[in-house]
Amino acid sequence: MLGGGQLGRMFIQEALNYDVHVHCLDPDADAPCRYLATSFQHGSLKDYDTVVQFGSNKDVVTVEIEHVNVEALHELENRGIKVFPQPGVLAIVQDKGLQKEFYLKNNLPTAEFMLVNGKEELISKNIPFPYVLKWRKGGYDGKGVQIMKSAADFDQLIDTPYVIEQMVPFTKELSVIVARNEAGESVVYPTVECEFSPVANLVEFLFSPAEISEEVEKKAREIALKVIDSLQMVGILAVELFLTADDEILINEIAPRPHNSGHHTIECCYTSQFEQHLRSIVNAPLGSTKLITPGVMINLLGEPGYEGIAKYENLEQVISREGVSVHLYGKQTTKPFRKMGHVTIYGPDLNELKTTGRIVAKELKIKA
Amino acid sequence: MLGGGQLGRMFIQEALNYDVHVHCLDPDADAPCRYLATSFQHGSLKDYDTVVQFGSNKDVVTVEIEHVNVEALHELENRGIKVFPQPGVLAIVQDKGLQKEFYLKNNLPTAEFMLVNGKEELISKNIPFPYVLKWRKGGYDGKGVQIMKSAADFDQLIDTPYVIEQMVPFTKELSVIVARNEAGESVVYPTVECEFSPVANLVEFLFSPAEISEEVEKKAREIALKVIDSLQMVGILAVELFLTADDEILINEIAPRPHNSGHHTIECCYTSQFEQHLRSIVNAPLGSTKLITPGVMINLLGEPGYEGIAKYENLEQVISREGVSVHLYGKQTTKPFRKMGHVTIYGPDLNELKTTGRIVAKELKIKA
Repeated sequence: MLGGGQLGRMFIQEALNYDVHVHCLDPDADAPCRYLATSFQHGSLKDYDTVVQFGSNKDVVTVEIEHVNVEALHELENRGIKVFPQPGVLAIVQDKGLQKEFYLKNNLPTAEFMLVNGKEELISKNIPFPYVLKWRKGGYDGKGVQIMKSAADFDQLIDTPYVIEQMVPFTKELSVIVARNEAGESVVYPTVECEFSPVANLVEFLFSPAEISEEVEKKAREIALKVIDSLQMVGILAVELFLTADDEILINEIAPRPHNSGHHTIECCYTSQFEQHLRSIVNAPLGSTKLITPGVMINLLGEPGYEGIAKYENLEQVISREGVSVHLYGKQTTKPFRKMGHVTIYGPDLNELKTTGRIVAKELKIKA
Repeated sequence: MLGGGQLGRMFIQEALNYDVHVHCLDPDADAPCRYLATSFQHGSLKDYDTVVQFGSNKDVVTVEIEHVNVEALHELENRGIKVFPQPGVLAIVQDKGLQKEFYLKNNLPTAEFMLVNGKEELISKNIPFPYVLKWRKGGYDGKGVQIMKSAADFDQLIDTPYVIEQMVPFTKELSVIVARNEAGESVVYPTVECEFSPVANLVEFLFSPAEISEEVEKKAREIALKVIDSLQMVGILAVELFLTADDEILINEIAPRPHNSGHHTIECCYTSQFEQHLRSIVNAPLGSTKLITPGVMINLLGEPGYEGIAKYENLEQVISREGVSVHLYGKQTTKPFRKMGHVTIYGPDLNELKTTGRIVAKELKIKA
């Protein structure tokens, strides 16, 4: 596994049930998988030689982050090693411009867009404000995405290739997780609905089932399945969607790995996204994606204003509630908005779960 | 944790969610926790110096097996280290004679018994056959327990202190798991019903909820809670019970650690027995023991006649069913009746689960 962060950690927790040995490469010597992986190598995911050397004696190479050296993965594939998601898929996902072109080419719905090579070209286009500006490469967790409101916003822009998108007046933000194995079998999870924190520009709150019509649910699932089939991808894929006021669905972006919007599947579905990813990349039969129980997921982010050894406030209070499952990621130090863990709240009544979720989000603070 | 077997492994899988660092000591250099523990020490659990050295720099010392050096644990306790379950509890559990005397003293129901110091004393007593003979010390997983049917059975007996018990004509074998933290808070899980394999003398099949009357359920839970309160024990405790034809409940034996009869709690309860054990030994609030869904648990034992590198027959077929969760323990080699893993089958209809359980038990074979 390229990357040894929280996604790798939860993946290993489940891979253990199949006695699959997971080896991790991560640039952080203290990454969450440090003690947990069968072996842990400290090194760059972007360095060609490091990635080739790491992968060359493995059966299957996978990722928990998109920002890895794709050329190295091509080389590993040439050497006969299974690489899932495939390097070609990662190349598309790493570049939001290629992503948009892929949607266009495959007749997949997405907001209208334009590509520019840099800041100067962008300014010269005189595009009417407001619009959304995204780095073509290197964005992550909201980093590299901003809304351009006036010419004053040009000042702080770095000079990099951009995707320019129309503002989508969406009513809901949805996510659909799909998986596909080498045999071409694919499965789709029930749609999840996201609530974003405008401050942190991160998912703050997620719940499933989404509160949408059956028709929208069906359409969202179809789109997600069409994405993974068009990519011919093997592995798990999160498809982030916008739902507009007139029930149109537009693809925002995709992530070819276990995803924040699928964490609730650990408790709420017969097969978690992590186990599903494992099943798909070893070409095992895919598991049931059915929801056993509704769930709400809250990210635990480092409290703004605190940096240092993490302290969890009111953790005991939170875990004394029924159906509240805490997942800490094993990161020793916190900083503002750092993803330190998540909490899943699950049980029969979604409205109750949401209420508990809001209480838990207020109670559980990560300070230093 | 003293012991690094499958119980430790599943404990660590859940302790990770609280970022608790688990260090293991185990006499097997290839034990299931080998790669998973924060640190893994290869050494004897019965050697005083080894256990004292291992535990002396830890915050809390716990066990996943009863057969450890109790004197060393007393020494650690004297040094101010938290040891849960307490050494005194382990001393009682290690000796089935002391266990029986404990039940008697605390007015806890158990089959009538007698103690003898060795083989000669046993023979001299001329006890009418049949009866049950148990080693006072060192028995495990059915080892050290036998039914004496005639004088011919004396031949193969070793010379060791024994507990002699009346045969209990039980109709069901039940297990109740309880937990208690340092604050004295205790919780009890719904009763589970066991089916034993007469060939392997091991639990073959387990399900919860048990098919018993409300009254019996209530009585079973009360007895289990009384056991842990009488012991003033901290940690998780499995209380194995016999149910007789006239709905009398007798304690068979107890295990002060996560137990085979609680594996279904991973999928079927809000709080698994492993997380509950963790909560209890760090004096956190205990979690809900409610069943989310009925479940059936099957042990995966090494097929008789095969020894060597384990091969799992029909694993793909088994995991293609909804609500079938496989847990392999990471043991490289199989041998007859070795516990290699377990499968939990869960869903709304217990009768359906039992049917699936019987099919899965026939399909999934571990050979070499």
